[in-house]
Amino acid sequence: MPRGWRLEASDLEALALGAAILGTGGGGNPYLGMLRARELLRKGHEIRVLPFEELRDDDVVVSVGGIGAPVVGIEKIEKGDECFRALRALEDFTGTRATALVAAEVGGSNSIEPLIAAAYAGLPVLDADGMGRAFPEVQMTSFFIYGARPYPAALADEKGNAVVLAEVKDMYWLERFARSVAIDMGAAAGFALPPMRGEFLKFCAIPHTLTQALELGQEVQRARVLREDPVARVLEVAGGVRLFVGKVVDVARRIEGGFARGHIRLAGLDADRGSTMEIEVQNENLIARRDGEVVATVPDLIALLDLETAEPITTEAVRYGFRVAVVGLPAHPRLKTKEALAVVGPAAFGYDVAYRPLLREV
Amino acid sequence: MPRGWRLEASDLEALALGAAILGTGGGGNPYLGMLRARELLRKGHEIRVLPFEELRDDDVVVSVGGIGAPVVGIEKIEKGDECFRALRALEDFTGTRATALVAAEVGGSNSIEPLIAAAYAGLPVLDADGMGRAFPEVQMTSFFIYGARPYPAALADEKGNAVVLAEVKDMYWLERFARSVAIDMGAAAGFALPPMRGEFLKFCAIPHTLTQALELGQEVQRARVLREDPVARVLEVAGGVRLFVGKVVDVARRIEGGFARGHIRLAGLDADRGSTMEIEVQNENLIARRDGEVVATVPDLIALLDLETAEPITTEAVRYGFRVAVVGLPAHPRLKTKEALAVVGPAAFGYDVAYRPLLREV
Repeated sequence: MPRGWRLEASDLEALALGAAILGTGGGGNPYLGMLRARELLRKGHEIRVLPFEELRDDDVVVSVGGIGAPVVGIEKIEKGDECFRALRALEDFTGTRATALVAAEVGGSNSIEPLIAAAYAGLPVLDADGMGRAFPEVQMTSFFIYGARPYPAALADEKGNAVVLAEVKDMYWLERFARSVAIDMGAAAGFALPPMRGEFLKFCAIPHTLTQALELGQEVQRARVLREDPVARVLEVAGGVRLFVGKVVDVARRIEGGFARGHIRLAGLDADRGSTMEIEVQNENLIARRDGEVVATVPDLIALLDLETAEPITTEAVRYGFRVAVVGLPAHPRLKTKEALAVVGPAAFGYDVAYRPLLREV
Repeated sequence: MPRGWRLEASDLEALALGAAILGTGGGGNPYLGMLRARELLRKGHEIRVLPFEELRDDDVVVSVGGIGAPVVGIEKIEKGDECFRALRALEDFTGTRATALVAAEVGGSNSIEPLIAAAYAGLPVLDADGMGRAFPEVQMTSFFIYGARPYPAALADEKGNAVVLAEVKDMYWLERFARSVAIDMGAAAGFALPPMRGEFLKFCAIPHTLTQALELGQEVQRARVLREDPVARVLEVAGGVRLFVGKVVDVARRIEGGFARGHIRLAGLDADRGSTMEIEVQNENLIARRDGEVVATVPDLIALLDLETAEPITTEAVRYGFRVAVVGLPAHPRLKTKEALAVVGPAAFGYDVAYRPLLREV
């Protein structure tokens, strides 16, 4: 009896939309992956979601996803089974089989990659992830923040290569080796993280994020059809706040150490007229300042949504003249502990800014 | 009953000297490794050499060695058990144990690394290698030239990291991944190549090269003591020819794609007075031209030996004013077949020069 509930083809587009919102400007575009997942469903594969509450202590859960430069994912169409092949290489190495998969990051394209691997492997995907959003590096998952063993892990590419990181000193070494191997593999590879037990994930995963992404996408779709305010739906579903409404007036980008860094500047519209907002970017939107004052910081989510459609705007696509709502969505409490902030707080990204919780009018 | 004969501490220095001659200017300095091997013998470890003729069809032979930038090996003292740990990672992955080790390249430091791993593992080292000299890249071994499976292989460093290249498309991908991982590991790592069966090695290894290196070193040592001509001893032992006697008048070096490229120019002395020799270098000495005419090419060995002591001079150490004999030593026939020349002939290094056998006066 297969576990979990079946994801329908009609869910996939909503899920991809929600995942893109949770990508907070980065995380890679989930659209191509979504098309591949839909094709697999059409061919008779099943994609099942395992509710977080149905996770068993002795489940063996492997987190799979793509690793590489997001921009390459657009140009270089993956064969589609890279994550599945990485999973198999890992299973062959450990001599055990996974009982479920889980996303490392629900934000962006890596929300979909586990679904594709799950379809090939006949395994359910846990309704959870390790970030509740997108981050650029693998150590920035709650799995590793809370002590998951950093090895063994495996990478595979579309050419038939597979590499097992058999033993690595810590999660930073894991990231380092994985990044180099992924670059050799053409800057895009499937990545399977060390197997985790269900009982560990119960305390360390960010729960319900797959269904949150799905619900976010569905609510935005519904609001568009009903001509309601889709941005307001996003705030309701995610418990977020509208930080700013404005027009993009300046975008600065540079590539530094493999990351897209820069800032986005906005001039206020409507109630925010006369004010400015500046957003610091490193792949994702990380710090938002309103008239010079910090109003939101990583790990809380800072997303730019089109003012009319709530279509999420990536840091790559943002241009002068875009009219957007900047929304702040609260990160899960598991990302805001002292241990977590040391890895995913503003200082971990090099900002001399303290973490500042989102303020909501009550 | 352990197989093979015991290498004595007094053999090690001669072996290192002979290996440096076979390094043809590259291959890394075997001196530090030799000291480590001697220390292991002093502590009661054994290093045994398995005669090529005693290789069994069902032997499982693993080639181990250091991979990285030779110059780093000088600055970064290895912990010493990197190759052994790479071997263990490979054995754990395959679920089989090696019955013997073998050097990938007898030239330079990688003549000694298998001895050290053998001391730790309690395994004999086969009297053979994959090059009969030194080459910069792993695909340039007779193992891969004649079809060894390019995976699985493993790397390990002194920090506790181990990476298994579980499945790679071909030997070029093996080299590529291994090089990147080695760079992450601090530009020096222990490397264990895919296990090979004895029956395969009988036809594909370069036989008797460990004892050749030992004999070369011993003969040079003896000639020095007896005040005979040590360069003449090298030529006798290796069946080589004296290509040129001269003084280094120009050295050009540049780092290109991780390799030390350049040339060495010599002005003739004694019988060669009035002539010049130019040697093309890529880590090793690859092409020798006398007065513009090619007189020796890779894969034959081109070594610069001090005119008085026959001390081999590396491409890193060579300087203006050195008085040297340039000797040509014939590569093993297994490196001069059509298949081999495609991988290790002049064209494989980017030279528009045909392979030219050494000419000997008869």
